[in-house]
Amino acid sequence: MSEASASYDPDNIFAKILRGEIPSTRVYEDDATLVFMDIMPRADGHCLVIPKTPCRNILDASPAQLAAVMETVQKVSHAVMRAFGATGVTIQQFNEADGGQEVFHLHFHILPRHSDVRLRPPGNMGDMEQIAGHAERIRAALSI
Amino acid sequence: MSEASASYDPDNIFAKILRGEIPSTRVYEDDATLVFMDIMPRADGHCLVIPKTPCRNILDASPAQLAAVMETVQKVSHAVMRAFGATGVTIQQFNEADGGQEVFHLHFHILPRHSDVRLRPPGNMGDMEQIAGHAERIRAALSI
Repeated sequence: MSEASASYDPDNIFAKILRGEIPSTRVYEDDATLVFMDIMPRADGHCLVIPKTPCRNILDASPAQLAAVMETVQKVSHAVMRAFGATGVTIQQFNEADGGQEVFHLHFHILPRHSDVRLRPPGNMGDMEQIAGHAERIRAALSI
Repeated sequence: MSEASASYDPDNIFAKILRGEIPSTRVYEDDATLVFMDIMPRADGHCLVIPKTPCRNILDASPAQLAAVMETVQKVSHAVMRAFGATGVTIQQFNEADGGQEVFHLHFHILPRHSDVRLRPPGNMGDMEQIAGHAERIRAALSI
């Protein structure tokens, strides 16, 4: 994928989540951003922050999209630390397939961390009931 | 490390780099941010973006610091793609020791990526002459 040919596909799955066409476990939203749970969690509380407006990744994001997303990344990072008693947070953000990106709508991964707990391998579907419980803990922490 | 006790140590090594007290291989700077090469590169062109003003990590960064850093992350991401013919970029950002942070001044890792090339394991010192050459390629790409 060359830089020049990259474009936004309005039928990517996060665009469908934004339009409510497919389900997601939402934990937060404001005018500019949405946060929902990753269905293949690499840590308990693993969630994703996306802008509500279209952009493919960091290469084509506007300053306003980046500012809004980072404000939400910060807010939710604090919340997951409270929600899970986490002692660290790892942020990952992937651009283009060779950069690790699988869905082509800008997203930041928020991974709550604890001492001596490694991230789980990628690509394994989580238990949806457990994920729903983790989402509830994040929502509660955000409302404090 | 609890959230409440986290504070900024003005003698962390990135603060010393900012003050010119220890050497670094710089590739870019503006009023608010500095970019220099990681000396333990996990990919060719692996560099770090930091704010020039003190903050420990994403948990205490100001909106202005985050906006400035992300603008530079975007600029340098484009540059490394040109400089190395990269087809992707991975961004990593670690908060607190349990989140993977080793130097307690906010920094974003920029990792140029190519098809079928895995990141090298962390913690291995790079060849400084090679790193200097990679820095020169990024500087050249930034000036296009």
